[in-house]
Amino acid sequence: MLKVKFVPQNIELEVAEGENLLEAARKAEIFIDAPCNGNSVCGKCKVKIVDGKVHTEKSRHIKDDECNEGYVLACCSKVTEDIIVEIPSNAGSAMHGMKIEDLSGEREQLIFEKAKSQALENGMEFKTYVRKDYIELDPPTLDDNISDFERIKRHLRTNLGYNQVFCRLPLLRKIPPILREANFKVTITHIPRGEGKTTIIRMEVGDSTNKLYGIALDIGTTSVAACLVNLQEGKLVAKASSGNAQIKYGADVINRIMYSTKRNGLEDLNNAIIKETINPLLDKMYRDSGIGRDDVVSFIAAGNTTMSHLFLGIYPDYLRMEPYIPAFVKAPFIKASELGININSETFIYLVPSVASYVGGDITAGVLSSGLWNSTENILFIDLGTNGEIVFGNREFLMTCACSAGPAFEGGEISCGMRAAGGAVEGIRINKENYEPAISVIGNEKPLGICGSGIIDLICELMLAGIIDRRGKLVKGLNTSRVRFDEHGIGEYVLVFKEHYGLEKDITITEVDIDNFIRAKGAIYSGLTTLLNSLGMDFTMIDKIYIAGGIGNSLDIENSIKIGMLPDIEREKISYIGNSSLMGCYLTLMSEDARHKLEDVGNQMTYVELSVEPAYMDEFVSACFLPHTDIEKFPTVKEILG
Amino acid sequence: MLKVKFVPQNIELEVAEGENLLEAARKAEIFIDAPCNGNSVCGKCKVKIVDGKVHTEKSRHIKDDECNEGYVLACCSKVTEDIIVEIPSNAGSAMHGMKIEDLSGEREQLIFEKAKSQALENGMEFKTYVRKDYIELDPPTLDDNISDFERIKRHLRTNLGYNQVFCRLPLLRKIPPILREANFKVTITHIPRGEGKTTIIRMEVGDSTNKLYGIALDIGTTSVAACLVNLQEGKLVAKASSGNAQIKYGADVINRIMYSTKRNGLEDLNNAIIKETINPLLDKMYRDSGIGRDDVVSFIAAGNTTMSHLFLGIYPDYLRMEPYIPAFVKAPFIKASELGININSETFIYLVPSVASYVGGDITAGVLSSGLWNSTENILFIDLGTNGEIVFGNREFLMTCACSAGPAFEGGEISCGMRAAGGAVEGIRINKENYEPAISVIGNEKPLGICGSGIIDLICELMLAGIIDRRGKLVKGLNTSRVRFDEHGIGEYVLVFKEHYGLEKDITITEVDIDNFIRAKGAIYSGLTTLLNSLGMDFTMIDKIYIAGGIGNSLDIENSIKIGMLPDIEREKISYIGNSSLMGCYLTLMSEDARHKLEDVGNQMTYVELSVEPAYMDEFVSACFLPHTDIEKFPTVKEILG
Repeated sequence: MLKVKFVPQNIELEVAEGENLLEAARKAEIFIDAPCNGNSVCGKCKVKIVDGKVHTEKSRHIKDDECNEGYVLACCSKVTEDIIVEIPSNAGSAMHGMKIEDLSGEREQLIFEKAKSQALENGMEFKTYVRKDYIELDPPTLDDNISDFERIKRHLRTNLGYNQVFCRLPLLRKIPPILREANFKVTITHIPRGEGKTTIIRMEVGDSTNKLYGIALDIGTTSVAACLVNLQEGKLVAKASSGNAQIKYGADVINRIMYSTKRNGLEDLNNAIIKETINPLLDKMYRDSGIGRDDVVSFIAAGNTTMSHLFLGIYPDYLRMEPYIPAFVKAPFIKASELGININSETFIYLVPSVASYVGGDITAGVLSSGLWNSTENILFIDLGTNGEIVFGNREFLMTCACSAGPAFEGGEISCGMRAAGGAVEGIRINKENYEPAISVIGNEKPLGICGSGIIDLICELMLAGIIDRRGKLVKGLNTSRVRFDEHGIGEYVLVFKEHYGLEKDITITEVDIDNFIRAKGAIYSGLTTLLNSLGMDFTMIDKIYIAGGIGNSLDIENSIKIGMLPDIEREKISYIGNSSLMGCYLTLMSEDARHKLEDVGNQMTYVELSVEPAYMDEFVSACFLPHTDIEKFPTVKEILG
Repeated sequence: MLKVKFVPQNIELEVAEGENLLEAARKAEIFIDAPCNGNSVCGKCKVKIVDGKVHTEKSRHIKDDECNEGYVLACCSKVTEDIIVEIPSNAGSAMHGMKIEDLSGEREQLIFEKAKSQALENGMEFKTYVRKDYIELDPPTLDDNISDFERIKRHLRTNLGYNQVFCRLPLLRKIPPILREANFKVTITHIPRGEGKTTIIRMEVGDSTNKLYGIALDIGTTSVAACLVNLQEGKLVAKASSGNAQIKYGADVINRIMYSTKRNGLEDLNNAIIKETINPLLDKMYRDSGIGRDDVVSFIAAGNTTMSHLFLGIYPDYLRMEPYIPAFVKAPFIKASELGININSETFIYLVPSVASYVGGDITAGVLSSGLWNSTENILFIDLGTNGEIVFGNREFLMTCACSAGPAFEGGEISCGMRAAGGAVEGIRINKENYEPAISVIGNEKPLGICGSGIIDLICELMLAGIIDRRGKLVKGLNTSRVRFDEHGIGEYVLVFKEHYGLEKDITITEVDIDNFIRAKGAIYSGLTTLLNSLGMDFTMIDKIYIAGGIGNSLDIENSIKIGMLPDIEREKISYIGNSSLMGCYLTLMSEDARHKLEDVGNQMTYVELSVEPAYMDEFVSACFLPHTDIEKFPTVKEILG
């Protein structure tokens, strides 16, 4: 066995000769960002060997001077002797960690209020599907000696009209002592389900009807966002978000699915989302709000179909293989305790139904909260999270498809990419004379990386300033130190020099990054075109475009059109609606109607499989250009570029 | 810490000074029968200190010579120095252990067939509530890419008419790999519940519709009996029974309830019934039949109300305290995995509903299988298990009560008592000239003790031979060595001298035993009288008496009347119907109608609380005599006694 020591963590472990260094780090529970999941593609798992040597492969991500300093890619290095490995402080920090978006509660509350009033306009009643009732039972006597549970049933039948009352064993076990401690005055939490039926999930001593809380949760491939909601008032009590800890097993769904086929892979992924991501978010919200886990009796979550499978611990590999079949679209009844989620153990977990393998519950929830399902106008809904899902329709029909856009819109597979959190460069303008940039950073913090909206700005500005050509290649011979080329001739533009902010390295965008992003935006644009064409429609027939997802609040619509991601239509038709998935979960927490509507919406959406549409591939290739190979499709861009 | 070593087990453990010796044995997992649960009453926990000394209390159960040899009662001894304790080989062996009743399968099958044909006559349809169906799904294609679970639902809707299909998470996790291994040809096990709804609990590769098994289980306070049934043919595949391992915590329900209030007491009792009693019985039946646990997909159990509470791990102490309130009468939906029962983990556990605190599901099941609920005649149903429950009625009404008879009918609280298993003396005749007995032993084995039917015979014969008087006291001065008195003047009759069979001690019945039994039979008789009187009826209005329970197959009806346990009516009206609780569970396995009928029967029974009936105490005192203080009530006995 060989010794591997990681610094600055000072964690040492023994490994077999030939052990992969990335695997060794995972065993030591040291996080190294490896979005490509160890395939030597992304170059993010750079570490420094400070003592000893490893057997490593050459990589274009390691420059010659870095190589001399001991830098290697962990994913393509094998341990052959005792070593000490230094983990750079930025390894993975941009994509991961518990860094919380410090959004003001008030601002969020306003967004919630807006979604709520829109839902009210759409005819939803705000009545939560979990209820609390304070009941005073007649204490038993020798003449009235029915069982405790019969006594509760009798009371609910006589006083509240429920003629069938259910409970589960763990609650039944608690009933006798609670009733007596409470002198038969208790509060029940229960879930009515029509026809006079209800299921009691909790019983408390005395009157605690004023404590009724729920969780809304959006499980993104890259980011996870949660709200703790007071179900009686609809108020947001706490909010938290973080990266999805599954990122260490791959940045996108395909890499995670592949990881799930490894030994313990599915378990690792399930633990990563529940124990390492969701539960810490819940704990933070409990600390922030002072609310206890047992008071959380409602839980609505949405995620794409792969995230939904991994959340439930269901093997997702058939999603990846033709004919791309999910195990389920609508999840069965599940208790929190079955999944180990840190809320009241008897709480039902409601997972928003998916539509198909690549259109998940997050989209269903987004369609719900955006009001698309009840619109008389033709609306195009685009989720720019990891991958990119599209819904087009109105109250009459709903068509949907998924573009394989990858994680670029959330900063994934971009060397200096990060999600839209504090420190992310979200807006950029470049001076066309001297090629110098001006940046805006989320939270006005020290810049750490670039989020999706920043990358759109950057590519657009680089194009408009003539720094890159329409293929996305850097132009040689410009009079600026910000454009440079490595020994392989690959160019990059330096957005932030490390000296300006005391960073460990420059924040740059490379030709590889630009290429990745162009493919992502091309996937979206060609998806839009193909979906509309399959209906015999075109962009002139769109009344509104809603953009949702993790790309960031500062998305510049104008620039998104200029780079050819969105169609060249009237700007006022396009708006960014934020995390519509989380909003849909919130509405579902607050309204039983919303939950029924979700199921309808899920059933109504017709899924179009782009990969079998003959025109899609041609559309995609044409769209992998700035803005498009056919500039006539972008008249306003043509005018600027001249 | 002090060292306690138990021989012949050779188990040593360390205990604190002053530790109770019975508790120490329990910690060492050594079984010592202690039906009175350590209250120095029953004298069964006799052990021998072979090295060292303990601090012990004097007891009438330890004779002077025994005391000199080192015998003590474990329950009233404290450890004060290092000791070696010898556990006598008969300690508890009569009441406990995995000794299986070796009943012939054919005979049992006949009883089952009889119950089945009676149920058919009563209009029940034999259709099990768990079903299996072999289905061949259309494999998915790009054009038919609905989810695995939707595909199953579609098939069941189209082909079998189920429009709502459910499953639980553990099954959903298995569906994708099973479907593909099976090439989409699978067998589902499911539970239809009307209105086109069904819940799938199992999925297997290929056609396995021929394997469908269930368990019927009677959870007695003293004995537990189980059957493994082929649900397609109704055939008994295996049968097993044993003592209830909870006996070490007390012989009757009151002592067990008291034990449940101790630290970990409830857990100990729950483990004793499930892990130490039921699971070993199941394992034995799996071994005997070659059937695997996963093929057991139906499970029906019945027990008295305390047993039902302990089986589910529900605190039973309020059953014991006025106004005697059970936590439940009808148990909620429970999966086998929630209780740790060794059958298919997704199997639903159906516990037959109780009526009241002291009339349990075993009685409901007995009323079902005896056909009482549909009778035009007036039937008196008496369960002579531990305690004694009575039901009187016909298809129009059902009245029930519980007599605090204790465990005497199953050999409990009788010094040489044992349950009706191999080695039990079940029939006795005494020669009135020389007072010598003739005995019949179950299985023609070496006699080990006396079961309930044997005790009835013995007391009756002792009375008829003039060996005891009508108060149950032994007559002095008879010319026989079989009657003897100890130093305290307490008499006993020796049924079997140890020398005859090489036993460790004589099999005797003492005046204390006789007194205990007279109180038990008095409780039954006074219960019968009080129940009928409460209806303004008397014994002449009874058309039939059914005796059920663990008293044993050889119950002598004539002798039961002579000792005043049963009323002095025409003998042909009285019959022994065996374990009617187990039979009721069997019927419920086989017939959905039976299950519905059970719930009706449970609801229809009106419970009479004897302890609040003013006449009951007087009736009881009058009945604590052989046969009764008022001999006029027993004309046929009066004639014999002259």
